[in-house]
Formats: sequence, structure tokens, C-alpha cells
Amino acid sequence: MENAPAAATASVRRSRDVPMLVERARAGDHRAVARLITLVENGDDLLREVAAALAPYAGQAQVVGLTGSPGVGKSTTTNELVRALRARGHRVGVLAVDPSSPFTGGAILGDRVRMQDHATDPGVYIRSMSSRGHLGGLAAATPQAVRVLEGAGCDVVLVETVGVGQAEVEVASLADSTLVLLAPGMGDAIQAVKAGILEIADVFVVNKADRDGADATYRDIQGMIALGERAAGQWRPVVTRAVAARGEGIDDIAAAIDKHRDWLVEHGELRRRQEARAAAEVEAIALGVLRARIGSLRDGTELPSLAAKVAEGAIDPYAAADELLAQLGA
Amino acid sequence: MENAPAAATASVRRSRDVPMLVERARAGDHRAVARLITLVENGDDLLREVAAALAPYAGQAQVVGLTGSPGVGKSTTTNELVRALRARGHRVGVLAVDPSSPFTGGAILGDRVRMQDHATDPGVYIRSMSSRGHLGGLAAATPQAVRVLEGAGCDVVLVETVGVGQAEVEVASLADSTLVLLAPGMGDAIQAVKAGILEIADVFVVNKADRDGADATYRDIQGMIALGERAAGQWRPVVTRAVAARGEGIDDIAAAIDKHRDWLVEHGELRRRQEARAAAEVEAIALGVLRARIGSLRDGTELPSLAAKVAEGAIDPYAAADELLAQLGA
Repeated sequence: MENAPAAATASVRRSRDVPMLVERARAGDHRAVARLITLVENGDDLLREVAAALAPYAGQAQVVGLTGSPGVGKSTTTNELVRALRARGHRVGVLAVDPSSPFTGGAILGDRVRMQDHATDPGVYIRSMSSRGHLGGLAAATPQAVRVLEGAGCDVVLVETVGVGQAEVEVASLADSTLVLLAPGMGDAIQAVKAGILEIADVFVVNKADRDGADATYRDIQGMIALGERAAGQWRPVVTRAVAARGEGIDDIAAAIDKHRDWLVEHGELRRRQEARAAAEVEAIALGVLRARIGSLRDGTELPSLAAKVAEGAIDPYAAADELLAQLGA
Repeated sequence: MENAPAAATASVRRSRDVPMLVERARAGDHRAVARLITLVENGDDLLREVAAALAPYAGQAQVVGLTGSPGVGKSTTTNELVRALRARGHRVGVLAVDPSSPFTGGAILGDRVRMQDHATDPGVYIRSMSSRGHLGGLAAATPQAVRVLEGAGCDVVLVETVGVGQAEVEVASLADSTLVLLAPGMGDAIQAVKAGILEIADVFVVNKADRDGADATYRDIQGMIALGERAAGQWRPVVTRAVAARGEGIDDIAAAIDKHRDWLVEHGELRRRQEARAAAEVEAIALGVLRARIGSLRDGTELPSLAAKVAEGAIDPYAAADELLAQLGA
């Protein structure tokens, strides 16, 4: 009981901190930016206040997604792209998102080491993030982290994701422009289609273009783009080559991104994408709230006892789901 | 109005078909199995009846998940594993799941071509499947398809997934035993950790073991397993080598799966996994129902108008989600 007033005071103090933190982030304070992203990432109680304080800065940065299979050179390419964007005078934010590790919670040392080049540059914000703890998962946490970086005055936000699974497609759909990295010898063009990346890519980068098979990969992708169905006036993906480890081809990538950005603005697509992004975000948050309500039943006896019945064949899972929802009052 | 009685009759007739279809599937009729999986995959109206009819056969097959990055040789390995299991007299089901292509809906030609070896074998059921249309996505559709194959008398069901993203982790968590395929030159051990596969693998297969770097990959994985934290009495992942394209090392894989299966039974883990799987399935279906309710708002004016407000910075997405849920009565 004695702690209650102190806790209440602390809570108010923290709540008061939010507008100040946002002000400091806008003034270029790296620690304030880092704290805001942590609040967003952890799905902290203050998340809603952070979101409210950041709302006015929505849509001010160019959001570029960057994805590809493990080992294709994403971190290296991101690193070089940051260098090129800095040379153009842009403030740059980097979110290295790890959607594939629900257990370890992402934030692998490797990425951070590779990004050391920009560690002391005040115009670059770098952050590894995971979806740990956030209600709506990455689909909700990532755009909020993007908003933090927009609020901090970044002109470009690069969102790097590992792999090419469903979660990456979700994250990619949150970007204005999506870069897909390929490398020779990582599987043929059929594998690219398999992974569903043809549909999400605005720009393909054939990285490690000095290796055997790079020309074949380049031709395969060009061929698949030629075969792909596109409505009239739809964007045709650009394919570039790079050897990111030697800094080669990076300007071509930057130029392709700019070209796509111009196209988006010209065709009114930028606003449409921003609204689609907002809709997906709102849906993900709403679903996260409902998921949390269902999850609260997991720790009780309801779900385990229903699951035991399903496992022994007494009822089917759809009937069990109906019972679960009835218990939820939904 | 004239069509109403006919439609009602047709619906009853189709409804009556379900127990008969299940009977035919149990008798080994491949077309009946295919139709049941299609019903499950499409989230057909009859899905609930199919699930109810299959409920008694839950848990009768050994479910083996098989995953790895694109190009690592999953289809080839699955193909050879089917051959080895057939030689042991098992009935085998194969589900080639493509969670990464929400747009094309999976079912790529490549897999089917590679599986032609077993096309005429009555003891093998092969199916590419996608989550297209299913309420609960793959996490709900895959176990139902597994149940169809269990009902059809399969002793082993292999679930092959593309890539190593979140969706694959979900699918892997639905298997009794999970095989993770690696290949030399596809990225180092850090990449494996990045992709979160260390946590889900019961058996690692270093495929293409005749290539340069195979020994290093083998050692890296062994090293990471040695470093990994395990509670006392927990399974220690087995690492095998294979050259699936030449049929080498397949018996070692089959032996490792058997060893893990024995361990599961001995430690009471099999039932625990089956119940955890059922719980995840029930949750996924319940969430799917709620997701569909939210999705129904997407086609209306509510979500688009909220999204437009978020995109222009008038409100934040959390406030918008609250409004959305209020409109849903949730």
C-alpha cells in the first residue's frame, strides 16, 4: 500500500516524459530516438502515448524495404546504401528486423558489427529490432518504429528483413519501395517465384555480381519480369547488379529507388500505399488486441482442456474454437 | 426463389458426401483424399464437417516437418526420403506447403515435377498446398490436411515448407519431428541462428555434403548445438550428412527421425506435442474467425476512412484500432 502513491507518481512522470522524448528525438538526440523505439518494440504501456505524439509526422520519410534469403548480402548492401544516401545529404534510419526468430527475439550481433561503419555518424540511426512483446507483432511494431524515425527527421528509412517468408512479405508491404536481393548460386529463378518475391519487388538487386552464374540469375529475373502479368500503367520492376562488398553498383540501386519514388508520386500511388499501410497497421493492432484476449485463455484451463480433447479425437478443432470464442464472449 | 429448394438439396447432398468421402479415403482412394484436402485448403463450407468426420483419427501418423532455405534441396530430399520409407513398408503422405506466396497461392510446378517418381505408387499421397482462402491460414489448414492423410491410413506424413521464416516456424511447430536442411555455401552458422532454426530443429541435415565447405557447415552446426542451452533430459539435435541428389545419407536421416520418435514416446513428449499442436490449431482457427470479422470491415467504409486519417496524421493507429474494435462490438 505504501508504494501505491509513489508508483502512481512515477507513472505520471513517465507519461509526461513522452512529449519531451519526442521533442528531443526531433532535435536529433539519438538516445531519445533509441528510447522511443524501445517503448514501441516492447509494446510498453506508453506505446499509445508515443503513437499519439508521433501521429502528426506520418508519411514524411521515404520508406525502403530490403529483403532476400539469408547469406545474400543484405547487411553489406544496407551498409553501402547508407553511405550513398549520406553522401546525398539525407538523414537515414535503418531498422534491421528479424521476424524469423520468435524465440531468441532477434537482434543478432552480426548485423551490429557490420553496421559499425556508421556508428559515430549523427545523421544515421541504426536499430536491430524484434517483435518480442508487441501485441500486433512486427506488422504493428515496425511501422511505429518507422514513425519514430520519421519524427526524428529521417529522410529515408531502410527496413531490412531476414529471409523471404510470410512475415517479410508483410513487412515489405509496409514500405514505399521494396528491394529484393538475389545472389548467384542461391537457387534458380523458380525458387524466387516459389518464395513469392516477384510480387513484392519494386527493384531487384543481383548482388555478388562478380560470381559465376550472375549473368544467368540476371537473365532469369528479367525473363520472369517479362513473363509476369502487369496491368497497364503498373510499375515494371527494375533489375540492377551490385558487388556490395566492394561498394560497386550502389549508385544504381539508389537511382532505381529514386526512379520508383518518382513514379509513385506521379501516379498517386504513394498516398495509396501509405493508406494501405495504415489500414494494415490498424488491422494488425486490432487483431493483436483480440489475440491477447485469446492468449489470456491459454494460461487458464480452457484451452489446454479443449486441446486435450482434440488430441484424443473427442472433438474437432473447429468445434473447439467455437467453444473458445464462446468463453471469450466473442 | 425457384433456385432455393434446388440449392438446399444440393447443399444437403454435398453434406451427405462427406462421410462417404472419408470412407473412400480410408479405403485408399486417392481421388477422395485429394478432394478432402481441397475442401480443407479452400476453407470450404464443408470444412467443419470434414474436420468432425476426421476427428477420431487424430494422432495416428508420424508427422515430420522438413524445412530450409530455398535451393537447399528440400524437394530432392523429400523424394528420396519417401523412397526409403516406402522400402520400409510405410504408407507416406507428403504436403509441400508454400507459406511464402500469399499472391500466387503456392503449388509451383517444380515440386510436382520432382515428385513424379512416386506418382504411380498407390502407397504415396503427394500434395502441394497453399493457404489461399483458409480462414486460419496455413497454421490451421496444414494440420487439417495432415488429418486427412492420417484418416487415409498414412503411417508417416512429411510436411515440406519453403524457407525459414515465421510461417515455417509455425508449420514446424505442428510436426512431431522437424528436419532442417542446410547446404554448404548458403551462409554461415550465424545465419542459421538469425533464421531461428536452431530452436525448431530436431534433426539437422547437411545436404550437398560432397561440396566444398560441407565439413565446415557440419562443424559449425555441431558447435552451435554444443553451445545451445538445453534443460536436463531435453533432446539434443542430431546432425546428419547427405547427398540427396545421389540418394546418399537418406537411411541416416530416416534413422535419426526414428530415434527422435522413440525419444518422444519414451519421454511422454509425443502426447505433449500433439496437445500443444491442437492448442495452436484451435487458437489459429479462433483467430481466423475474428480476423474474418475484421476483414469484413475492410470492404466497408470504416477501415479505409480510419486509414486515411492515420495516413494524414489526424489520429494514431492505436486510437484507430480502438474505433475499429468498437464498431465490431468487440
